[in-house]
Amino acid sequence: MAGNGIGTQFRFTTFGESHGVALGCVVDGVPPLMDLDEAWIQSFLDRRKPGQSRFTTQRREPDAVRILSGVFEGKTTGTPVCLMIENEDQRSKDYGDIKDKFRPGHADYTYWERYGIRDYRGGGRSSARETAARVAAGAVARRVLEAVPGGVTIRGALVQVGPHKVDRARWDWDQVDQNPLFCPDAVAAEEWAAYLDGIRKNGSSVGAVVEVVASGVPAGLGEPIYDKLDSDLARAMMTINAVKGVEIGAGFAVAELTGEENADEMRAGPDGKPAFLSNNAGGILGGLSTGQDVVVRFAVKPTSSILTPRRTLDVHGNETDILTKGRHDPCVGIRAVPVGEAMMACVLADHWLRFRAYR
Amino acid sequence: MAGNGIGTQFRFTTFGESHGVALGCVVDGVPPLMDLDEAWIQSFLDRRKPGQSRFTTQRREPDAVRILSGVFEGKTTGTPVCLMIENEDQRSKDYGDIKDKFRPGHADYTYWERYGIRDYRGGGRSSARETAARVAAGAVARRVLEAVPGGVTIRGALVQVGPHKVDRARWDWDQVDQNPLFCPDAVAAEEWAAYLDGIRKNGSSVGAVVEVVASGVPAGLGEPIYDKLDSDLARAMMTINAVKGVEIGAGFAVAELTGEENADEMRAGPDGKPAFLSNNAGGILGGLSTGQDVVVRFAVKPTSSILTPRRTLDVHGNETDILTKGRHDPCVGIRAVPVGEAMMACVLADHWLRFRAYR
Amino acid sequence: MAGNGIGTQFRFTTFGESHGVALGCVVDGVPPLMDLDEAWIQSFLDRRKPGQSRFTTQRREPDAVRILSGVFEGKTTGTPVCLMIENEDQRSKDYGDIKDKFRPGHADYTYWERYGIRDYRGGGRSSARETAARVAAGAVARRVLEAVPGGVTIRGALVQVGPHKVDRARWDWDQVDQNPLFCPDAVAAEEWAAYLDGIRKNGSSVGAVVEVVASGVPAGLGEPIYDKLDSDLARAMMTINAVKGVEIGAGFAVAELTGEENADEMRAGPDGKPAFLSNNAGGILGGLSTGQDVVVRFAVKPTSSILTPRRTLDVHGNETDILTKGRHDPCVGIRAVPVGEAMMACVLADHWLRFRAYR
Amino acid sequence: MAGNGIGTQFRFTTFGESHGVALGCVVDGVPPLMDLDEAWIQSFLDRRKPGQSRFTTQRREPDAVRILSGVFEGKTTGTPVCLMIENEDQRSKDYGDIKDKFRPGHADYTYWERYGIRDYRGGGRSSARETAARVAAGAVARRVLEAVPGGVTIRGALVQVGPHKVDRARWDWDQVDQNPLFCPDAVAAEEWAAYLDGIRKNGSSVGAVVEVVASGVPAGLGEPIYDKLDSDLARAMMTINAVKGVEIGAGFAVAELTGEENADEMRAGPDGKPAFLSNNAGGILGGLSTGQDVVVRFAVKPTSSILTPRRTLDVHGNETDILTKGRHDPCVGIRAVPVGEAMMACVLADHWLRFRAYR
Repeated sequence: MAGNGIGTQFRFTTFGESHGVALGCVVDGVPPLMDLDEAWIQSFLDRRKPGQSRFTTQRREPDAVRILSGVFEGKTTGTPVCLMIENEDQRSKDYGDIKDKFRPGHADYTYWERYGIRDYRGGGRSSARETAARVAAGAVARRVLEAVPGGVTIRGALVQVGPHKVDRARWDWDQVDQNPLFCPDAVAAEEWAAYLDGIRKNGSSVGAVVEVVASGVPAGLGEPIYDKLDSDLARAMMTINAVKGVEIGAGFAVAELTGEENADEMRAGPDGKPAFLSNNAGGILGGLSTGQDVVVRFAVKPTSSILTPRRTLDVHGNETDILTKGRHDPCVGIRAVPVGEAMMACVLADHWLRFRAYR
Repeated sequence: MAGNGIGTQFRFTTFGESHGVALGCVVDGVPPLMDLDEAWIQSFLDRRKPGQSRFTTQRREPDAVRILSGVFEGKTTGTPVCLMIENEDQRSKDYGDIKDKFRPGHADYTYWERYGIRDYRGGGRSSARETAARVAAGAVARRVLEAVPGGVTIRGALVQVGPHKVDRARWDWDQVDQNPLFCPDAVAAEEWAAYLDGIRKNGSSVGAVVEVVASGVPAGLGEPIYDKLDSDLARAMMTINAVKGVEIGAGFAVAELTGEENADEMRAGPDGKPAFLSNNAGGILGGLSTGQDVVVRFAVKPTSSILTPRRTLDVHGNETDILTKGRHDPCVGIRAVPVGEAMMACVLADHWLRFRAYR
Repeated sequence: MAGNGIGTQFRFTTFGESHGVALGCVVDGVPPLMDLDEAWIQSFLDRRKPGQSRFTTQRREPDAVRILSGVFEGKTTGTPVCLMIENEDQRSKDYGDIKDKFRPGHADYTYWERYGIRDYRGGGRSSARETAARVAAGAVARRVLEAVPGGVTIRGALVQVGPHKVDRARWDWDQVDQNPLFCPDAVAAEEWAAYLDGIRKNGSSVGAVVEVVASGVPAGLGEPIYDKLDSDLARAMMTINAVKGVEIGAGFAVAELTGEENADEMRAGPDGKPAFLSNNAGGILGGLSTGQDVVVRFAVKPTSSILTPRRTLDVHGNETDILTKGRHDPCVGIRAVPVGEAMMACVLADHWLRFRAYR
Repeated sequence: MAGNGIGTQFRFTTFGESHGVALGCVVDGVPPLMDLDEAWIQSFLDRRKPGQSRFTTQRREPDAVRILSGVFEGKTTGTPVCLMIENEDQRSKDYGDIKDKFRPGHADYTYWERYGIRDYRGGGRSSARETAARVAAGAVARRVLEAVPGGVTIRGALVQVGPHKVDRARWDWDQVDQNPLFCPDAVAAEEWAAYLDGIRKNGSSVGAVVEVVASGVPAGLGEPIYDKLDSDLARAMMTINAVKGVEIGAGFAVAELTGEENADEMRAGPDGKPAFLSNNAGGILGGLSTGQDVVVRFAVKPTSSILTPRRTLDVHGNETDILTKGRHDPCVGIRAVPVGEAMMACVLADHWLRFRAYR
């Protein structure tokens, strides 16, 4: 069952449950001589933290990260970096009464079928808390990418909540950190806030779409045919809790495009590099990066922990209802934004290091 | 650059270019004592072959497969199975005049950036011909899945071409093999045929969406967190040429669903198994199979080899136009249907074998 | 540089340096529902601990292990098990004065060449302290092997120190835990003790040979051709610090045997299993286990940290001498015995789980 | 059972049985733009061919290799290179009468236990014929190593047959290709020839030791802790048929050395590189190359196919005798020399490419 790691050259394995002692990751393949300290990693975790707004889970976690290994006198040694975050605010009593019932839409039933045991507290390993470890690994990956000539910028944003979509004409990256929804459209941010207030008060939840863009990625990253950059990105995003779809560039919209509309034509650009006239490809062709922005979107389903009773079974197969009390997220897609950025960073770092074997 | 294989327990590596000597695959991890012969594999290749209708590339390839190893007296020995298909109809002269220009929307530019060399004939390794090797591997995978109690059925269909979608109320699996478009809706099949005739005559092309469904998959397959069944499926489908998006179950539509609408409630079913009241999850929760149909869809972009001139660059960076002559596909999505089935089979076979380590 | 993990189905990654904050491992692929607690793991660490006798390094470490994840109510959940051991007795001042010189026979120079940085304190990552993490992982592996019908017993012993070899006619496994040298021959144990006292007083060191035997291994484990059981064992033992050779069964002695002498003939045994008339194969033929005892031996070189000056270079390339003060081991082979057992356990656990995919 | 490949960045999978249609390998991770043709690969196969002298199996195989993919206009494209060798001289009738009996010392019994089926003709997949595929892969690896500044030279030799060892004072690499035994000592070559004539006439066989030396390996190759250069070499050599032990540098002799004797002291050498005063380390310290010659030795057991009856069982568990007729090798160690060179090349190529990710 060795499925807890991802990556080849730059690889990390996460460990830890929602209500266990600690969670964290071991990052393997970290190049030596990079500056790395806890403050750098903490800055990315702080962006992810629950309890930051009325839209995200009201669990208060300091998420303080410790570096247990792999750094000496402030620089990476090339040996594995183990990052650990101790769990503090677990509020086990919120969950104890449902330990024998399967929450529909959660992994309770499937984990039971596979393992015959599940840590029911807060979703155990399937909980979104595991993503704190990913964000920590992503911080290390971003450091790795600083070696790319010209630098790589990775930014994520929420582009849809429920039926409401961002207006791309109003897109402003600076807005993303100005509102609690990572929304790049100031007008939409207000509309969505009102909408989500209603959802939350009803004890309900709604889905979302996250978009992550990486700029400055050199052309040629990726390894056809089976370790393509886009297939690795698709896989990585799909490993995030609650994700049900991933697309690159124009994504599913390509179905309706003709060949003339879809292909990104080329003209001569500065420095001998091509200037593309569009980016339906999302920065990836034939599984390799083109040098354009790498654009990935993923859909996050609505939380299944909601405050209305649901029909289900218990572990003995008897029909019953289940009612989730306590904390819940009206839209888990919001907090998936930093996680999507982290996964983009990890996949790009992995491919960047593999690419360097030939330069 | 070891990116030419996929899978862990059941793993295959493909080799070969569009206009090279031969193409094929080596399938590693094949259980012993399974019946396997060339006729079985050939039957799946014949479903994929180009030149079968006016909608697919007019290249005539017998695609005759040979088993070079791994079978003794009609049964697998547990050693690698090497399958080889010799290339015959290559029509090199169709491509020779464009060896210095990058075709927009193809991998020409990206392969050049990465390798400094590309086999420009017919798209070399990035060509869709490589998928014949996948279909061959998929045939072996289907054999592996015959060991699953109750059996696993894998079926694919085209559900959208351009703006035209299938009507799910008219869905009939038996229709899929009755028309050249793998369409499960007899009415749509005729409409789409007329539509595609127009596209083809204009020398144009259009995108499509393929849906693959696997029934009879036992609950519990998949390995959280990073080798989840859905992330492996997403990755596998994204490795198919021209795919720009993958979704599971309700897919991107989950963004607009509320928690009540999305979660698949459970009642008691026969044999002590749950009966789910819906399948927005697409048969996968928390990265593990639920026992329901596994439903995957992927979007295929329109062919970029079309018969109108496109603006591009040559290998020296000069602006130029490019015009593709010869064979072209009005809709490559059609032939992706058997390939999607093959990838579903390979991923499920891999997870089935890994699952068995615990049963 | 993702070389910090080993194994496929049962896989572990270690982290941590000799003088860093902590060290440990993440064990991935642990089957669910196994009993696991800190006491079980601690019992194996206690067998390895330094400072136990006058023959091993006088560093006092409690080596107290904590389980950070993967266990719920005393049973494994199937998710990664992270084990952590905090470093306490580091005595940095013993090393500080040699941070610019390469100790001959150590990895100082090679790590410098590769990484451009090295944690010189106590050998950093190349130190034998990393093996505490392996012993911890080995404890988990032994638990996995308890599922093998009939049980698997793994025992190691020291069979040679310097020029002195054990007398196999006097071999008694019970003696191994009765003396500080893990020696199965009570007479040799006393001779070796006197010999090593002399070595230690001279500030010198000597090499050794360790033998590890696994009984009860079912026939058929291993995956030809490249994941053979013996090649995985050779690799695993060679990853232990200071090992310079590995052999199976008769090992290098086979060079002098004839075909008649070497081949282990078979007669009918109880329960329909073969009874072999000898075990030159060491329990492995063609890379697969035969059902006989798996016998592995490895040679450990003498410690290079000795108390006489050695000619070397400093980091600027100037010739100099180096003198190691402080703690040193007269024979690091002694403490390698539990480590060899742990590696045997991990490799067998990995192959056992992979074998189960076909039973 | 995905154990038929080896390597990470430079990776190959072999396929094919002794008496199947063909055998070969797929080499993944080949850098682009290298010259590669069939003549280059054939030259290495010709060195390995059976039937070359009275000391090696009298099977006449042309071993003609074909390149099926991965090369365009004489240069590698970066895509997988599939090399195929068709089997011709199989002489099945030599084996047919023993299909129900297990030959002692061969993998017959173990393969039966694992797979329930075995291709008994000539040892099927466990036969030494599989090594032709390795030699072919090794030829590609040597091409990869030509990119190492200063070049890497890989040479193998037989250093012991039965009780007879080479005299290192008479070592002359030029002698290796002057006699049919790959012996670097002209005097020993004659003695060994007479000795082996006797062995062969008696229908017997004897073991051997092979030594492979790589010169010009840059310092720093290898990835601690678990993908060390020496552990990968140990693993690779142990995957060769009939190998029962592997050692590096002084190998098992280190057990008898003191710390003073073993550690290779350093003085300042030309070009700022160290000049080591000895090479007990065999060119590897802490799992990384030092820049010195990498020296590996492995022991090959005597062939178990000999011309005297042996006691064994048949597939029904009944006691019986077995007598092997037809071709047999008095010393399989001889033909293992080019195979050892090939494995050295493949492992070094893999580590070289991984090393480049950081240079």
